[in-house]
Amino acid sequence: MTTTLLCCDWGTTAFRLRLMTVEDQRCVGELRTQSGIARTFSDWKTDGRPKRVSQEDFFRHRLKTYIGQLAVQVQHSLAGTPVLISGMASSSIGMTEVPYAGLPFALDGSQASIRFFESQSDFPHELGLISGVASSNDVMRGEETQLIGAVSLLSWAAQPDKSVFIFPGTHAKHLFVENEQLTHFETFMTGELFGLMAKHSILADSVETADLTSLSEADEAAFRQGVRQSITKPMLAALFTVRTNDLFDRLTKRQNALYLSGLLIGSELGHLLQKTDWPIRLCSSPNLATVYTLAIDELKLTHRTTLVPPDLIDRAAPAGQLQVYQQKREKQPI
Amino acid sequence: MTTTLLCCDWGTTAFRLRLMTVEDQRCVGELRTQSGIARTFSDWKTDGRPKRVSQEDFFRHRLKTYIGQLAVQVQHSLAGTPVLISGMASSSIGMTEVPYAGLPFALDGSQASIRFFESQSDFPHELGLISGVASSNDVMRGEETQLIGAVSLLSWAAQPDKSVFIFPGTHAKHLFVENEQLTHFETFMTGELFGLMAKHSILADSVETADLTSLSEADEAAFRQGVRQSITKPMLAALFTVRTNDLFDRLTKRQNALYLSGLLIGSELGHLLQKTDWPIRLCSSPNLATVYTLAIDELKLTHRTTLVPPDLIDRAAPAGQLQVYQQKREKQPI
Repeated sequence: MTTTLLCCDWGTTAFRLRLMTVEDQRCVGELRTQSGIARTFSDWKTDGRPKRVSQEDFFRHRLKTYIGQLAVQVQHSLAGTPVLISGMASSSIGMTEVPYAGLPFALDGSQASIRFFESQSDFPHELGLISGVASSNDVMRGEETQLIGAVSLLSWAAQPDKSVFIFPGTHAKHLFVENEQLTHFETFMTGELFGLMAKHSILADSVETADLTSLSEADEAAFRQGVRQSITKPMLAALFTVRTNDLFDRLTKRQNALYLSGLLIGSELGHLLQKTDWPIRLCSSPNLATVYTLAIDELKLTHRTTLVPPDLIDRAAPAGQLQVYQQKREKQPI
Repeated sequence: MTTTLLCCDWGTTAFRLRLMTVEDQRCVGELRTQSGIARTFSDWKTDGRPKRVSQEDFFRHRLKTYIGQLAVQVQHSLAGTPVLISGMASSSIGMTEVPYAGLPFALDGSQASIRFFESQSDFPHELGLISGVASSNDVMRGEETQLIGAVSLLSWAAQPDKSVFIFPGTHAKHLFVENEQLTHFETFMTGELFGLMAKHSILADSVETADLTSLSEADEAAFRQGVRQSITKPMLAALFTVRTNDLFDRLTKRQNALYLSGLLIGSELGHLLQKTDWPIRLCSSPNLATVYTLAIDELKLTHRTTLVPPDLIDRAAPAGQLQVYQQKREKQPI
């Protein structure tokens, strides 16, 4: 059995590769780049396809380059170390498409949809490509592996029978877990809508986006006001109040960006007000933890919410990959 | 008293000038251009300001050019004919800023906020600049004049004590009228959000926008499905289903654009479901009348909705300007 694994989180806009010890899940080397799937796919269309390099080979070659850089960093060869990838690499714009897993989806990793590729002479790594999960009307790629990892790190003993796991982001996910199975999930376009509104809409002149981790009292008050507005006014009307806040000089442009953020995050979380018997697990990266925690407080959801520590969330993807690898590798030899 | 008036509707993105008879409100000449306020303001910043031409003079000169073109079209001089302008010309990026009128706002035009400018040697027209209306948290410029006009054309005899007038558009307006006064209004960013989603978001690849006036049965079904979704799912989650409709091959990209339109228009109109005692007057331009009528039908609001004929809405702005002119000119001589 291998003692280390190369764990790769390949998202739409970012690439992250970690060398992990299997036994105690320590990260012993890491490389991050901005070569997400979208950019790599676009590079393939420009450079690879005209030279008749297949999409799969192009991605594999790119990956090999990064593994080489990580090998230099950790000062030993990584040949023979298996690679696991989750995220968008299994999509139509990734390395190769792997079918989605379905629901319900067991959180021990036993139902993950993974495709293994044998080691090759010029790519001396067994490779496992983990696909996403589809419901009847929603899809995700990556969060299912983070969820498996987060749950394994949290340990089941402390888990309630059911809870909704919230992963904030460009496309925030609400993952409904019952009896150690993912049974339902929903995608919210929160982060993307914030970006579009702040950059391309008539509201662009009324806001000034900035760091969301360090908030003044006035910033916080503006954010909370946005959250309150989100549950009293229809979204399409609430958005326009960002403009009038500015026209009427009620908020600075920075406060107004927080107000807009409050509107959108409040609107995302609003449906949880009705789901009174669902404990909430907030699984946020450090940069969004502050505002999501504030929104949860303003919506009076704190008593049934646990903040999963951001450093645990940071380790969730490789932990999930290790879990999937252990579950699937032996049962599905290449 | 003048027998004709130059009626100008100067919006953010379009300019429209009509020569109207006062007595029977006939349009005897018309000019349309794409020189809206935004473009004209930008032209002033590039060409006018460096030459020390004031913003007001720059706009007046642009207007004079268009009046000249209309004079050629109608084959007689328009010198001496008063000009009335509503829309964005009274905003900070327009000719000159005129303060908003407040609420409640009488629909006979007597409370309109208008500034008159004397005729000048090189601009031989008395000019009236009609401003918008502000509430404590919303603003509009132009729709108040359209409302005054629409109501005057509909004639009060047929009006219920109260009704909500809906003006679809980039920033749709819902205008609440009680006892011949506008008492409240709300702006919905429906049209703008549609454009942003269809052009700049992750949904852009999933939709193909097209003419909204002629719908096949499948188009109509997709639109209705969007309307239904809008009232069952939170907006930020409903938007993502546009992507899964495409991923799962459930709708063509054209049908999916109609589904997205249904989501947004349904969401805009959804709050009217609670306002059960408010009759609805739909004041739509021809291009949006079909889809708004469908949404109203799907939401089961038809029994309390009247479709104000689109050709009447087309005449509403000059009718409102005439009404304001008659109310204000004599009481406020220049």
